[in-house]
Amino acid sequence: MQKRSQETRSNILQAALALFANTGYDAASVAEICQAAGVSKGAFYHHFPSKHAVFMEILQNWLALLEQQMVATLQEAQDVPHALLHMADLMQHIFEQASGKMPMFLEFWAQASRDPEVWQVVIAPYQHYQQFFEALVQRGMAEGTLEAHNSQVAAQSVTALALGLLLQGILAPTQADWSTLPKQSIQILLQGLAKK
Amino acid sequence: MQKRSQETRSNILQAALALFANTGYDAASVAEICQAAGVSKGAFYHHFPSKHAVFMEILQNWLALLEQQMVATLQEAQDVPHALLHMADLMQHIFEQASGKMPMFLEFWAQASRDPEVWQVVIAPYQHYQQFFEALVQRGMAEGTLEAHNSQVAAQSVTALALGLLLQGILAPTQADWSTLPKQSIQILLQGLAKK
Repeated sequence: MQKRSQETRSNILQAALALFANTGYDAASVAEICQAAGVSKGAFYHHFPSKHAVFMEILQNWLALLEQQMVATLQEAQDVPHALLHMADLMQHIFEQASGKMPMFLEFWAQASRDPEVWQVVIAPYQHYQQFFEALVQRGMAEGTLEAHNSQVAAQSVTALALGLLLQGILAPTQADWSTLPKQSIQILLQGLAKK
Repeated sequence: MQKRSQETRSNILQAALALFANTGYDAASVAEICQAAGVSKGAFYHHFPSKHAVFMEILQNWLALLEQQMVATLQEAQDVPHALLHMADLMQHIFEQASGKMPMFLEFWAQASRDPEVWQVVIAPYQHYQQFFEALVQRGMAEGTLEAHNSQVAAQSVTALALGLLLQGILAPTQADWSTLPKQSIQILLQGLAKK
């Protein structure tokens, strides 16, 4: 029984993700999510109090997966420049997998600018990434691979570049080679931060 | 008479911008725009066929102003690195002026991902900026200040960094010093592109 319950939950999340990405969060109704997931409204409300709760869980699952992959990448890399290049690989992989689902994250961001609850979930990990990259830059400076006047500014630049690439991938998916651009861009930034 | 008509148009645009930024495009009604602008519905529809038309004109005006400032910056600068640093100044100035109005641009982007007409207006200048920065990188290579394996990738990196800074400024306005960060970030990227 528990396994079936987990399947139902997973079906609802997948159907909602597809609908939010295709028609937008506002336009997708609970009835449509139920139909696409093949579940009853009763089953839906057994698992989630609202459409908003489904949205929040999709966002949190995605952020948790990203976090897990970034930490694994960091543990495996020989030094900080290699870790950053592997993270760029990760981004290229995300683009390959997620084409069509990307406008979903514009929804997260647009809603974050006016819904305090979404804001907390989007901004809390954002600060977390900022700190993650700042610790990474400091480690690179300690190991002698990187040089920065200000590790906070360097970390903010890495975060800005990553966000900007994500946004370009959403807005203009056909305008660049997403299987190579993130890595090439981070290489330019790394040259700017490389120990002279 | 014509002067008064221009004033009415300008009042509608200003009131709509404030409402779109504060409550979002969907939630702002034509009636509210008219009330905030101090104009009748008749006057509104004399100037604009729809709320969407107001939205498009705000977007186009903003892009035209940005374009004008970027071209002026380029003409005044002694070389390409200085031109890029002056553009970073421009971004810092935009942040100072526009605080509170920024979520508007998330609206543009979220809508661009599903409205073909908005898409055209957002993406056409985006390609234009890409080409603008590519020409700039090529000019820097010709004058001997910049070095890039691939001027297209270098231009995409500049665009990504600028977009990412814009998004960070929207999402986390209190998390960085926006009066200095754009310039410091572009300096790191310029070090990565500097002629060795």
